Amino acid sequence: MTYSGEDDRNRSNPSDEDNDIYTEDGSIRPDFLALVGAAIADRDIIFLRQNVTRLHESEIGDLLESIMPDQRLALIRLLGDEFDMTALTEVDEAIRLEIVDQLTNEQIAAAIGELDSDDAVYILEDLDQEDQEEILAKLPFTERVRLRRALDYPESSAGRRMQTEFVAVPPFWTVGQTIDYMRDEEELPESFTQIFVIDPTFKLLGVVDLDRILRTKRQVKIEAIMRETNHPIPAVMDQEEAAQLFEQYDLLSAAVVDDNDRLVGVLTIDDVVDVIHEEADEDIKRLGGVGDEELSDNVVSTVRSRFAWLFINLGTAMISASVIGLFDASIEKMIALAVLMPIVASMGGNAGTQTMTVTVRALATRDLDIYNAGRIIRREASVGIINGLMFATLLGLIAGLWFQNYQLGMVIGAAMIINLIAAALAGILLPLLLDKLGADPAIASSVFVTTVTDCTGFFAFLGIATWWFGIH
Amino acid sequence: MTYSGEDDRNRSNPSDEDNDIYTEDGSIRPDFLALVGAAIADRDIIFLRQNVTRLHESEIGDLLESIMPDQRLALIRLLGDEFDMTALTEVDEAIRLEIVDQLTNEQIAAAIGELDSDDAVYILEDLDQEDQEEILAKLPFTERVRLRRALDYPESSAGRRMQTEFVAVPPFWTVGQTIDYMRDEEELPESFTQIFVIDPTFKLLGVVDLDRILRTKRQVKIEAIMRETNHPIPAVMDQEEAAQLFEQYDLLSAAVVDDNDRLVGVLTIDDVVDVIHEEADEDIKRLGGVGDEELSDNVVSTVRSRFAWLFINLGTAMISASVIGLFDASIEKMIALAVLMPIVASMGGNAGTQTMTVTVRALATRDLDIYNAGRIIRREASVGIINGLMFATLLGLIAGLWFQNYQLGMVIGAAMIINLIAAALAGILLPLLLDKLGADPAIASSVFVTTVTDCTGFFAFLGIATWWFGIH
Repeated sequence: MTYSGEDDRNRSNPSDEDNDIYTEDGSIRPDFLALVGAAIADRDIIFLRQNVTRLHESEIGDLLESIMPDQRLALIRLLGDEFDMTALTEVDEAIRLEIVDQLTNEQIAAAIGELDSDDAVYILEDLDQEDQEEILAKLPFTERVRLRRALDYPESSAGRRMQTEFVAVPPFWTVGQTIDYMRDEEELPESFTQIFVIDPTFKLLGVVDLDRILRTKRQVKIEAIMRETNHPIPAVMDQEEAAQLFEQYDLLSAAVVDDNDRLVGVLTIDDVVDVIHEEADEDIKRLGGVGDEELSDNVVSTVRSRFAWLFINLGTAMISASVIGLFDASIEKMIALAVLMPIVASMGGNAGTQTMTVTVRALATRDLDIYNAGRIIRREASVGIINGLMFATLLGLIAGLWFQNYQLGMVIGAAMIINLIAAALAGILLPLLLDKLGADPAIASSVFVTTVTDCTGFFAFLGIATWWFGIH
Repeated sequence: MTYSGEDDRNRSNPSDEDNDIYTEDGSIRPDFLALVGAAIADRDIIFLRQNVTRLHESEIGDLLESIMPDQRLALIRLLGDEFDMTALTEVDEAIRLEIVDQLTNEQIAAAIGELDSDDAVYILEDLDQEDQEEILAKLPFTERVRLRRALDYPESSAGRRMQTEFVAVPPFWTVGQTIDYMRDEEELPESFTQIFVIDPTFKLLGVVDLDRILRTKRQVKIEAIMRETNHPIPAVMDQEEAAQLFEQYDLLSAAVVDDNDRLVGVLTIDDVVDVIHEEADEDIKRLGGVGDEELSDNVVSTVRSRFAWLFINLGTAMISASVIGLFDASIEKMIALAVLMPIVASMGGNAGTQTMTVTVRALATRDLDIYNAGRIIRREASVGIINGLMFATLLGLIAGLWFQNYQLGMVIGAAMIINLIAAALAGILLPLLLDKLGADPAIASSVFVTTVTDCTGFFAFLGIATWWFGIH
């Protein structure tokens, strides 16, 4: 993005480094930040209008995230009407709330009137009921009805993410009529890739891609070139499910319909890309034991989001410790057991995590189903046995040499085989079970899997040693 | 997707369960699979043509993944020319290679001629040089030149993913001329959302979205409505970087240009969605210690992909074991230490993984940069101290009561605080360091982080105990 451009959109040339507000590693250039910071301090509205207003909404979002908290509101106030509120949909939730909280409802209402409905809903849904109502009351009637309807759909549903602006025509229009309509109509959506065909009750009849219209002679009727359905998405459908339809059928946009198959909005690929990103994010964070954390969260909310997980882990770690406690007499007589036991547990934990990661991801992408589950379970068990045998030999030799006790080597080898098989089975069966029970396998799998491998590892190693060496 | 439909694309209505080949949980319906299986056995080409050929390519891909390996080739052979090779781009790599290996180069060449260039490249790039050349030699000249050029770009580059079919017009054409051209031209891409404006040397001058053309009067010149640039993507740019541009600027398609800014192809959002998915997949799998594994991999390649990680973990586990070995005399005198020590290590491992997950993800999405790194490091350290204090108190009390030894409780509490701070710092600093060194922080972070927390946990707990209780 050049510091000042002429056209109305997309002025950046990413290969042209000198004009880019980003450095090579994707952060905003320090010299640009310094200029903006100075302009905010000097209340230099002219500089800000020239160099900030013209940025893409996502660039303004990055800029807001990179400047100091007190500069954010100052910048928005200085830009006034020229500030594009869409930028707020591009920043972390914590920063968005911080900014919106400091604006009056009048300011928010004025700004929201300018936005596409999906962006407006994105900002409104985070506010409390009372503020929402106050802001909606200040909007024109049609706008208000549209936004209220979108907000009535459940959180994370297609209805919340849809845009209520779309182009729809009757089936008996010709291509020529349709093109003339689009040339004359002022109130078209900002951009669109297909038009919908509806009956007088707004029932969805079909859809026509814009390239199809452009390839067709003027006198052809729309109904002759429309496709019958385009995976219409029920407004109450979960956004994740809708995203999967987009991915599977390579859709660019899809009609959103209400319970009576009436067209209420359009879901577009750019929102779906955000959903795909969010869902992947969620999986990664849940596997890592952090909740819906964002990078901009403060210390208190971060502590809170991580405490629960650590607390559960404390409980499971104590279960493993109790297993060790069963064998304290053995450890006292053979201290090498205490030295070696974490190795067996740790190998099991890692092998279990490997299998679990593959399983959780396959469940999330719907690649794992009843047809291949049996095969995958058998494969994982085989992998567990083979890796178990290999690492049993390796660790057995090392332990035997380390403590000059080949029997101890055999004992730890046996424990390793048992634990790697247990790890493989826990890694695939626990996520499958959680999924069957309707829980998200990403959330709890890793704590369960490592509990299984820790307990099995300690019990197998210490138990076999106690039996083999005849310790009482 | 209905079992037999009429129109040429997108016949499915996902809300209409009876006609859907999928069950509610996203796997293919058993009765449909049984019918297809029987038809393959009976060589019932008519049934297969009616019910398989008409499916969407991604549905055929799912079908291929769900049937037995020997049925796959039989199905493809029975369908012959009617089999849509695009479906092969929708299946796991292992299955694709298995199928392609059994087809002759003539068959592949014939099928590839029908595909969009990006799909053709997708299939060709997995083959060895010799087969590639043989297949290319059988294709018409233009086709061959286009594919060879795409294959010449580095793996995972935009040039490999781009489609070489696009619509380009000169700037002095009018909207009317452009529409007439599209109405008459037979060789247009299957679908497109924008047209490019080029000079006689194919230098990219601008881009026009189709909706803009439809809104504009016939006599207006293209140069009057084109946007100057649309984030042209250098063909050698990494696909991940290109995907980030699509996400940031909500692009639907973007021009791909060569070193001389000449238009060579177009990258479309559907390919980018696949890239986003693959990259998230890669991150999740690397964090879980599995390489570029796919669900369809066999036992041998799975063992191989997991062995390296487990081998490294064996090494680090032995380092931690040696730390315990330093204090064997202390453990012998106070067996409670052996029972409790895994708790300290495990809590550290989990806390470290939490911080690491957030850090790795933030680096992948470019949310973490020089402006907030300092703040995030301070936040993580604070979170470590606060959680350390809380869990130190909790575990200290539990351990004190368990072993009736309040001094032991204090010792373990102190070790816990030290280890949770170490975990927080390792969780953020190690990924940052790996990133700085140009390594993918997702690959190696978790093994380094848990090594730090295991060693610190054992050393702090056993060391403080040895010192406090004066054990020699």
